[in-house]
Amino acid sequence: MSAAGASLVATQTTRAQGPNLTLTAVPGVKVGHYTLTERPTGCTAVLVESGATAGVDVRGAAPASAETDLLKPVNLVQQVFAISLSGGSAFGLDARSGIVRYLDEKNVGFKAYGSINVPIVPAASLIDLNVGSNPKIRPTADCGYRAAQAASTAAVPEGNVGAGAGATVGKSAGSSRAMKAGIGSAAVRMPDGLIVSALVAVNAAGDVIDPATGKVVAGVRTENGRTLADARVLLTSGALKQPARLGENTTLGVVATNATLTKTQATKVAEMAHDGFARALYPSHTMGDGDTIFALATGTQPGTADVSRVGALAAQVVADAILRAARQATSIPGYPAARDLR
Amino acid sequence: MSAAGASLVATQTTRAQGPNLTLTAVPGVKVGHYTLTERPTGCTAVLVESGATAGVDVRGAAPASAETDLLKPVNLVQQVFAISLSGGSAFGLDARSGIVRYLDEKNVGFKAYGSINVPIVPAASLIDLNVGSNPKIRPTADCGYRAAQAASTAAVPEGNVGAGAGATVGKSAGSSRAMKAGIGSAAVRMPDGLIVSALVAVNAAGDVIDPATGKVVAGVRTENGRTLADARVLLTSGALKQPARLGENTTLGVVATNATLTKTQATKVAEMAHDGFARALYPSHTMGDGDTIFALATGTQPGTADVSRVGALAAQVVADAILRAARQATSIPGYPAARDLR
Repeated sequence: MSAAGASLVATQTTRAQGPNLTLTAVPGVKVGHYTLTERPTGCTAVLVESGATAGVDVRGAAPASAETDLLKPVNLVQQVFAISLSGGSAFGLDARSGIVRYLDEKNVGFKAYGSINVPIVPAASLIDLNVGSNPKIRPTADCGYRAAQAASTAAVPEGNVGAGAGATVGKSAGSSRAMKAGIGSAAVRMPDGLIVSALVAVNAAGDVIDPATGKVVAGVRTENGRTLADARVLLTSGALKQPARLGENTTLGVVATNATLTKTQATKVAEMAHDGFARALYPSHTMGDGDTIFALATGTQPGTADVSRVGALAAQVVADAILRAARQATSIPGYPAARDLR
Repeated sequence: MSAAGASLVATQTTRAQGPNLTLTAVPGVKVGHYTLTERPTGCTAVLVESGATAGVDVRGAAPASAETDLLKPVNLVQQVFAISLSGGSAFGLDARSGIVRYLDEKNVGFKAYGSINVPIVPAASLIDLNVGSNPKIRPTADCGYRAAQAASTAAVPEGNVGAGAGATVGKSAGSSRAMKAGIGSAAVRMPDGLIVSALVAVNAAGDVIDPATGKVVAGVRTENGRTLADARVLLTSGALKQPARLGENTTLGVVATNATLTKTQATKVAEMAHDGFARALYPSHTMGDGDTIFALATGTQPGTADVSRVGALAAQVVADAILRAARQATSIPGYPAARDLR
């Protein structure tokens, strides 16, 4: 396997200085990647071993997911202990099993009966089977286990790692004009102690747009492959009649906060966080993707949180994380990255 | 009443030349406003008297609505005959009754039993009771009836009319620093005959942002009231701890297309159209608004539509309509409009 390769990529793409401005900015959150560089694909484990109140919003029409029904506010379980993100489409949901095993070995989970703890690990996978030459290489339970083993509170490695290893963007006009993206992370630390952070594996049909300027960061290239075509122009001119083809797309996010939220409030934060997808991806939430965001609230900041504030900041860091996913990615054969078009 | 005043405003803000690029660009769709200039508030009737397949997505946490349950894909009724939008919060839902009466007089509706047709008119209201000096002035059934009477296939009047008459934006730091917005409309006509159009009454807590540039068009003003403060900066700096206060906000949209869609597909289009809110409003979809979009598909364009395409174009025209709502608005006491800050 390719732990050494993954580690090398991780080191190159970690922020070098300053405070931790990634998902792990929220105390109690650990992140680990495991990358199968031989395709590439991979998985990412987000661990909250003390439990976090959680919500989810699945807004893409083609999701691959597990343990999302229990996150409905009406259902029993209030806290999760990890989130599994992976490549490999429905096959990649196996990564979850490895994270469950890792937590089971530590006896972490929902107290179901007597001494039995059930690790609650919602999961979502993105479809990257079209990337690389061997679609049989997919994240397995072993991938998830190793990602969980690698999890730490350090700043999250970004770029071509974990669930973002095989992620691409700008597929509205076909994969021959697409670009590489990856995984990105961002956080805000507010003066009053509120922290909101995000991790996004960006595998969109759409272009990555910088909402601060309206400019395309990565996306559909022109036919000669040298510059950005702008999916917005292609779509509104009529050149694109099928902006999100099937079998290539899904962007996955996890938002975390130290705020104290109920499960229902965490669900609302997950919903609002999708505004970050809308701002930084064009188009998003299509029939051809399974765009999904999980929200985790650790509750170490006491008091009543303003849910609209947490949700608005979540949308902000989600958009920021998407930009980082595009900017920290490096090219692979057939898929140049944003840094190559500079 | 103030039909003359409303008509004057309408004339001033109608696009003068060129093809109809408003909601009524879709054949079979009529729009009429009735404006109560004495507060101001008002209502807008969107008529589809031949019926249109419909969907809705309520993404704000504080909605005022009616006849939205029947729009769930699993439920019986497939088509609606009008949409009622109004100011006046929950009180303003009365406007719907007037539209129902108007359609009943024409015997338009769902064939329920024998010769009985039930006009299906989903409705949503925005809260503008804080605007003007008399919150007891609210859209009534008479308002809805007159709006339906005024409905035509002409280009939709924009600005301070109908459901947008009392609409304001940029309330994140309180109404003393807010600005006037109104109702706006936009459409795209594709080379292959697909038309997608939108009408939005913009009463957001958030700022109106031009997604093409990232610049604020209308929103929270600085304390001296002369320039734009930028809600994004206020929020991420920590200056704003409650970005969407209760009782002041809700943005309402209607999207129309001539595409042939199922009710489920229309629902997906309504969902995707919310990406236009996310792009042009910051923040949107908060606990303090009832942000809602209805989608109407008239089906005069035969063949199978690409739902992602229709939805992506819907998000585009929704964002465009929001910009027009801000730019076509005119000031009222206490609330300058975008054109005043130029």
